[in-house]
Amino acid sequence: MTNVTIYDTTLRDGAQAEELNLTTQDKVRIAHKLDELGIHYIEGGWPGSNPTDGKFFDEIKHHTFENAKLTAFGSTHLAKTTPDKDPNLAGLLEAETPVVTIFGKTWDLHATTALGIELPRNLELIANSVAYLKARVDEVIFDAEHFFDGFKHNREYALEALAAALEAGADRIILCDTNGGTLTGEVGEAVKAVAARFPGASFGIHAHNDSELAVANSIEAVRLGASQVQGTINGYGERCGNANLCSVIPNLELKLGIGVIGAENLKRLRLTSNFVSEIANLRPFMRQPFVGSSAFAHKGGIHVSAILKDSRTYEHVTPQSVGNVQRVLLSDQAGKSNILFKARELGYDLDKNDPTVDRLLKELKQKESMGYEYSVADASFELVLREALGKPLDYFHFRHFFVVDAKREEDAEPFTEATVIVDVKGQQEHTAATGMGPVNALDRALRKGLERFYPRLGEIRLLDFKVRVLSGAVRDTGGTASFVRVLIETGDKTDRWTTMGVSHNIIEASWQAVVDAINYKLFKDESAEA
Amino acid sequence: MTNVTIYDTTLRDGAQAEELNLTTQDKVRIAHKLDELGIHYIEGGWPGSNPTDGKFFDEIKHHTFENAKLTAFGSTHLAKTTPDKDPNLAGLLEAETPVVTIFGKTWDLHATTALGIELPRNLELIANSVAYLKARVDEVIFDAEHFFDGFKHNREYALEALAAALEAGADRIILCDTNGGTLTGEVGEAVKAVAARFPGASFGIHAHNDSELAVANSIEAVRLGASQVQGTINGYGERCGNANLCSVIPNLELKLGIGVIGAENLKRLRLTSNFVSEIANLRPFMRQPFVGSSAFAHKGGIHVSAILKDSRTYEHVTPQSVGNVQRVLLSDQAGKSNILFKARELGYDLDKNDPTVDRLLKELKQKESMGYEYSVADASFELVLREALGKPLDYFHFRHFFVVDAKREEDAEPFTEATVIVDVKGQQEHTAATGMGPVNALDRALRKGLERFYPRLGEIRLLDFKVRVLSGAVRDTGGTASFVRVLIETGDKTDRWTTMGVSHNIIEASWQAVVDAINYKLFKDESAEA
Repeated sequence: MTNVTIYDTTLRDGAQAEELNLTTQDKVRIAHKLDELGIHYIEGGWPGSNPTDGKFFDEIKHHTFENAKLTAFGSTHLAKTTPDKDPNLAGLLEAETPVVTIFGKTWDLHATTALGIELPRNLELIANSVAYLKARVDEVIFDAEHFFDGFKHNREYALEALAAALEAGADRIILCDTNGGTLTGEVGEAVKAVAARFPGASFGIHAHNDSELAVANSIEAVRLGASQVQGTINGYGERCGNANLCSVIPNLELKLGIGVIGAENLKRLRLTSNFVSEIANLRPFMRQPFVGSSAFAHKGGIHVSAILKDSRTYEHVTPQSVGNVQRVLLSDQAGKSNILFKARELGYDLDKNDPTVDRLLKELKQKESMGYEYSVADASFELVLREALGKPLDYFHFRHFFVVDAKREEDAEPFTEATVIVDVKGQQEHTAATGMGPVNALDRALRKGLERFYPRLGEIRLLDFKVRVLSGAVRDTGGTASFVRVLIETGDKTDRWTTMGVSHNIIEASWQAVVDAINYKLFKDESAEA
Repeated sequence: MTNVTIYDTTLRDGAQAEELNLTTQDKVRIAHKLDELGIHYIEGGWPGSNPTDGKFFDEIKHHTFENAKLTAFGSTHLAKTTPDKDPNLAGLLEAETPVVTIFGKTWDLHATTALGIELPRNLELIANSVAYLKARVDEVIFDAEHFFDGFKHNREYALEALAAALEAGADRIILCDTNGGTLTGEVGEAVKAVAARFPGASFGIHAHNDSELAVANSIEAVRLGASQVQGTINGYGERCGNANLCSVIPNLELKLGIGVIGAENLKRLRLTSNFVSEIANLRPFMRQPFVGSSAFAHKGGIHVSAILKDSRTYEHVTPQSVGNVQRVLLSDQAGKSNILFKARELGYDLDKNDPTVDRLLKELKQKESMGYEYSVADASFELVLREALGKPLDYFHFRHFFVVDAKREEDAEPFTEATVIVDVKGQQEHTAATGMGPVNALDRALRKGLERFYPRLGEIRLLDFKVRVLSGAVRDTGGTASFVRVLIETGDKTDRWTTMGVSHNIIEASWQAVVDAINYKLFKDESAEA
């Protein structure tokens, strides 16, 4: 099959996602990252529709890109005016991009209901707008909005709209499943009709994920002749999002053998996905295909023993091909081989006959029976491992903590205060702090005592905090007297790590997790310096 | 097309998800919720593989279900033994379910590499195991593990494995895309070959989502004759998860017109999805098709003005059909009908023009912006509703609480003590209690003050306690200073109810939930007596 180009609309359609808000500078940084990945077209926004997009196009004129062409997005001209007087088309030209994309109505319902115009007039808007732009810009792409719905309801009119764009000089027409409701079989039927009606015309697909079919629909269109796929990184977009390029690209490249961004660039896929979610301040989706942290994580005992023999047994592609890594999760069935694998991952090469391994296994089993779950807390696991290896950490020694929460009728929130006593490098530190809650107060008091000795603790940020009541205990003793497990995710400028604590007492469980998080940070920095 | 049955494996394959850990009681509650949704088969687990699954099957024997058949899952017997001596098959029979599902190898690589046996011996394992079970259980389902990979690498052998199962009496064979790497076109080709080779045989599909194609592949199989789809709620499962039943079911029912669970049950889809994510203590995925909170949320200005004219313009199905709601972001329109719907559910028949509804809407909006999520805490919602209706509860009045946690080096757990002052029926009660943790101590002190006046509070048991840091707040202020939401589930002899609290301070949030739980109990008993 011939090559396929990728058209990224993360900065425009992606930014329509409910939880996504990008600044101009965010958009510039993402554009460069997309360029590095080898994306062919980057849709920067809709100039004139909002101030961020306007500023982006002003700024981006001063940047150069290796692979990607920048495109500006807008609509056909308003029915009440002409192309030369239309502010939207003027805004597109002012963006000075080598490519312009405009969308037009191809579903009769939309022309009459949303625009409130006659059907022939809508075809004029398409033809006039495309012709006007094509005389002034290198490349004009026509997005056939709601094409698949239009095709279902009034096939002839939908095809006429495509003909109007092509005859007016559009370089490529894009079949849009704007509402995301089209099944894969229906996409196939419509694409075949387009290919038959317009032989030689260049066409692409823009799918939404409302039926969880956007990736499948994009691939089906390519299989039937589409030469461009539009989508977004991580599938961000309005409602349920757009076709996820992080799945479309590796499926085309690795499964269908279609040249898209090339095998070398493909290894940057996970990095790009994480970069965009980080800039967008959105939690990465663990189960995301190809690039998610769970995508090559194995938990079941049978799966683990099989992948140790041959990773093809439970992996559809190699994690390396998309820049991801294989992970083996420790679980209550954790055997010796899981521990050895995990230790090796962390850089400890243990022999399976080493008595340390048996000691460690015994300790882990005992702790897991209390409710510790090391599969979700790598950093705490590493600290236990070091202890078993006879290399416990000794940055500070706990003496005492005391935390109080008091609330009177007239208070909106309780007053919270903690005191902590620890020995650090031969000195006793006794500190106190208030906090937004008891764990925050303890955390602040402890760090107050330590930061004088370990200033890099100032870089730590607590990213997430989760509590759950543990199995078994609940029914017997009642919720507030049960064992609880606290998971804390901590980060600094370069890393993220998860630690854990278990206790009847939520304060004690949180304290254990906080202490582990701080120890891990100190140990990690010391190892990096060594 | 004929009807299709749904086989849910949330409790088994879903529980393989990295972040999912379910207690026996969690599993029982989910099973009932699946039954209410109209699911046909519920796979409860792999008896003998771990203690939780064993306990689940012991417990579930005492429950009855309206729609669903319970199934136990396991593998073909071990190569070194015979069916009657195989502990795995014995465990399946001990589960005493009306249906048993076993998986067997159909990919030659797996037989030789993972099992380390000759290809003909693998066929014997399949035939022997199916025949042994079929003589003892009503219905036997054969999961053809890695069928699509097997079909690609050694088509004839993969089909022979299916034949072995069918000839030995399997009631249905399930084509599994275990590694999730198969493209939709390849699924179609393989399904056609199966339908041609085994005319009249009943077959289904079990797809994984590693290529983001699990929903598309499931639908393609149904289109070509499959009569069963296996999957999980929210697509939970090992690595990237399983086919998401929350998308498969509405696609079949609403798009292909295939009877699955029926239009009425379909309206429970969002509720079921939320229920499972809450029980699992996992953040719901906003952009999830059909059931996500963003699935019918409109942000773009053009989209909003069009849907106000005709919602078909940007919605592929009606949100009501799957129990979801249309939301217009940054608008007060959303929610009113939701509130009326919810109030009616609780027995309060409000008119939509009643000024109470506007007042309530405003209060809920404000509370939801702080992180309250009333969809999961019916009891707290009812208390807010009563307050808006001018009927607040007045069983006691809060004055003061004080709680302290102290731990010294030599203590295994902190010492915890709480004091509470409340006014009850004109008297001031000042009580103190110790506890296993601060919330337990507060809970005990409060009840000590109230039980003299309300002896039936002695019937209360706190069943579950969950804490989550709220999204958004995390990055800005750091985990231990973020807003947290506490959910408490409480029960007595006849009922269970869920209450909620939100605060920066976990003690305060827990206190709110405990107070709501006690108020709800008193109100409920009073209503029952009235």
